[in-house]
Amino acid sequence: MSRIRKIYLDEKEIPKQWYNLAADIKTEPFMSPDGPVPPEAWAPVFPMNLVELEYSTQRWIDIPEGILEILSRWRPSPLYRAYDLEEALGTPAKIFYKNESLSPAGSHKPNTAVAQAWYNKQFGIKRMTTETGAGQWGSALAFACALLGLECKVFMVRVSFDQKPYRKLMMQTWGANCVASPSNETQAGRTILEKMPDTPGSLGIAISEAIEAAVTDKSGNTRYSLGSVLNHVMMHQTIIGLEAKKQLQKAGIKKPDVVIGCAGGGSNFAGLSFPFVYDKINGAEIEIIPVEPASCPTMTRAPYVYDHGDTAKMTPLVAMHSLGHSFIPPPIHAGGLRYHGMAPLVSKAVTEGLMNPLALHQLECYEAGILFAKTEGIIPAPETNHAIAAVINEANKAKEEGKEKVILFNFSGHGLMDLTGYDKYLSGQLTDYELPENIILENLEELKDYPKPPVGK
Amino acid sequence: MSRIRKIYLDEKEIPKQWYNLAADIKTEPFMSPDGPVPPEAWAPVFPMNLVELEYSTQRWIDIPEGILEILSRWRPSPLYRAYDLEEALGTPAKIFYKNESLSPAGSHKPNTAVAQAWYNKQFGIKRMTTETGAGQWGSALAFACALLGLECKVFMVRVSFDQKPYRKLMMQTWGANCVASPSNETQAGRTILEKMPDTPGSLGIAISEAIEAAVTDKSGNTRYSLGSVLNHVMMHQTIIGLEAKKQLQKAGIKKPDVVIGCAGGGSNFAGLSFPFVYDKINGAEIEIIPVEPASCPTMTRAPYVYDHGDTAKMTPLVAMHSLGHSFIPPPIHAGGLRYHGMAPLVSKAVTEGLMNPLALHQLECYEAGILFAKTEGIIPAPETNHAIAAVINEANKAKEEGKEKVILFNFSGHGLMDLTGYDKYLSGQLTDYELPENIILENLEELKDYPKPPVGK
Repeated sequence: MSRIRKIYLDEKEIPKQWYNLAADIKTEPFMSPDGPVPPEAWAPVFPMNLVELEYSTQRWIDIPEGILEILSRWRPSPLYRAYDLEEALGTPAKIFYKNESLSPAGSHKPNTAVAQAWYNKQFGIKRMTTETGAGQWGSALAFACALLGLECKVFMVRVSFDQKPYRKLMMQTWGANCVASPSNETQAGRTILEKMPDTPGSLGIAISEAIEAAVTDKSGNTRYSLGSVLNHVMMHQTIIGLEAKKQLQKAGIKKPDVVIGCAGGGSNFAGLSFPFVYDKINGAEIEIIPVEPASCPTMTRAPYVYDHGDTAKMTPLVAMHSLGHSFIPPPIHAGGLRYHGMAPLVSKAVTEGLMNPLALHQLECYEAGILFAKTEGIIPAPETNHAIAAVINEANKAKEEGKEKVILFNFSGHGLMDLTGYDKYLSGQLTDYELPENIILENLEELKDYPKPPVGK
Repeated sequence: MSRIRKIYLDEKEIPKQWYNLAADIKTEPFMSPDGPVPPEAWAPVFPMNLVELEYSTQRWIDIPEGILEILSRWRPSPLYRAYDLEEALGTPAKIFYKNESLSPAGSHKPNTAVAQAWYNKQFGIKRMTTETGAGQWGSALAFACALLGLECKVFMVRVSFDQKPYRKLMMQTWGANCVASPSNETQAGRTILEKMPDTPGSLGIAISEAIEAAVTDKSGNTRYSLGSVLNHVMMHQTIIGLEAKKQLQKAGIKKPDVVIGCAGGGSNFAGLSFPFVYDKINGAEIEIIPVEPASCPTMTRAPYVYDHGDTAKMTPLVAMHSLGHSFIPPPIHAGGLRYHGMAPLVSKAVTEGLMNPLALHQLECYEAGILFAKTEGIIPAPETNHAIAAVINEANKAKEEGKEKVILFNFSGHGLMDLTGYDKYLSGQLTDYELPENIILENLEELKDYPKPPVGK
């Protein structure tokens, strides 16, 4: 055993500050018909201590002791060297991954769930509402609320609710209440159900329902929580990349050559990559690759526009890559990647040329996931498979070029709750889906009267 | 963060030897109608290098480098201090647990699966067969076979197969073939199905099928593998307790006062406890508690007898606590604890007074599991809930007595694949079941003409 697979940090080495990319990349303001949205307008939706983080442009933000204490249940997460995957590929590349699947909820999502629940509790909130796609986020918030003694209500996108019954049970076991979205519990849900009773649902719809459920609670003790997209969520996740930096140093690696993560709303990708984007802004040569599904191609095929974050247009306008708020992606199994938009910070970084987004089809991703399961041993979440497929492409490129590249990726979650997708893949029931250009263009029509954000720096 | 939750060891600190309790406790020989079974009689069933381990009475056995290399994917497992559970109970006890749920298969089972697959491969075997109850063992062997490039066939007890569809998918994803037992693929299975077409199955039946599938393969390249009960399996698992000892020392604890594990066949319990049984034999004061379900009470209500390890009587006679090889336990959700017998080494240690077995009902165990999920954050396997319930009892006792006891238990696996059980518990569909004494006595009739093992030292 001359080689070491897992690079650990002590609990005391958990980063004590989050990195805020908003200090280094200027995103556009949220817009309402009355102009830029001031922080106080968010008061019915989020607790003000989180709104403050959302608007902050301070580069380093202290992580409250109470949050560190809870994160220490599973953090720092180990950095793994993927020796066996390297060997199977015969690549000279060194592949490292942050194993975020070891959290009790099985993904990176608790990093922000715990932080958000903690800030809500500090603010006196008793009950949180949210949406979930694949279920990773909903179960993470259920977990965080259980530990902090808050009530939790989750609207889960119908297609995932049906495909992944265990996710609901997981949330239930932690004491949360989970319903399929669109539901009959909100006006937004009822409106959609009337028009499209058989809709598979979407993150956009579920967000509308969760916001409505929060802002219409007359007790004033309920707030909404978003598991991705927003600046403060990206910030909470940067603990992943900050740990990875320390761990690479321990492994004697000065910097990675390529950093890869899958991107739905953008949070796991941002969490790993933003600290390296900071280095890149400061001159380091690093290729940074967010990987999205070809069936929901926001960064690679959608424009950088102003659009709503949800389908019922309850959110203000957000400057981001978007396929249009009415876009309902086909029901691929990587439910966590079925979002019509992309985090503003990720979107802006893409427009500034700091990132090289890539879109992949699902069959290639499942194939990559199975190779990973049979070499590294862990069954990845279908979302994570997108990152792995991109890693394999990069490792093969390194082999062709004969280069000893260092590839770092985020192993954002395990697939133990997503096995029906593997079953369908293995039994040949899955196909790839190329989104026709005219569907994208038709959808974008709905944005034609919206303001346009400036492009470039 | 003055307190540290997780006590890690370096990869290089993985124990390099297994502890073999058979050096310190004499178990009775396997018996056939012709007398004690010699090692060579096992040749069609197990590879001879594993048979050698099974018969060994050497105290310390070197772990081959190739096995350590694979174990390093997730080992050493962290030792956790359960601060939040302690706080919720208001106990002065210090509760520690080995977190075996972090293995890629989610339980302690890969510790022996990897070792067995490795020895089989060394011996030139191409294909392994096995049985599984809850699915923990089957998925562990599927995982090990995937990493080592062996074929794997799993007979899964029907009731678990139906209750836990994800387990089958997990095995499939690693490339294994999993069928419900009793199946039509073996003579043993067909015989049972004819008599009892609606049987929920049992570990005893599944073992018969898996052995038959191995020994009837004419290529000679197939061997059977057992996930518990046998001496070599217990030995492979002792890495858990050996790590725990080092970790307790790091935490400044000289010895635990109480060691607890759930026990079905006995392997996770043995893995944690045997190194402490060794200390106890050498004078240390430690209470050692195997916890079994009240519905399948081998140690607490069944005699120490000679019985077959499987229902179809394909195995020789084994000296152990047994409810009779025809006993089919009621379908409680802790499928991994539904075995009619108990590991010979555990059984013998019980007869020698080295252990204090305890039987618990399932409702109390689920309640304990949910408290654990809401305090420590991890959803436990239903089997593990038995250990947790016993820990809570001990912690409450320590509170009453005002004693600062150190309680160590094995968190043998997570419950993410077992959530239907939680669902049934939370919706009030589960009840407790007291096994009537006359059913036990009637079942034991089948053993009346078998030889009797000597009791005591």
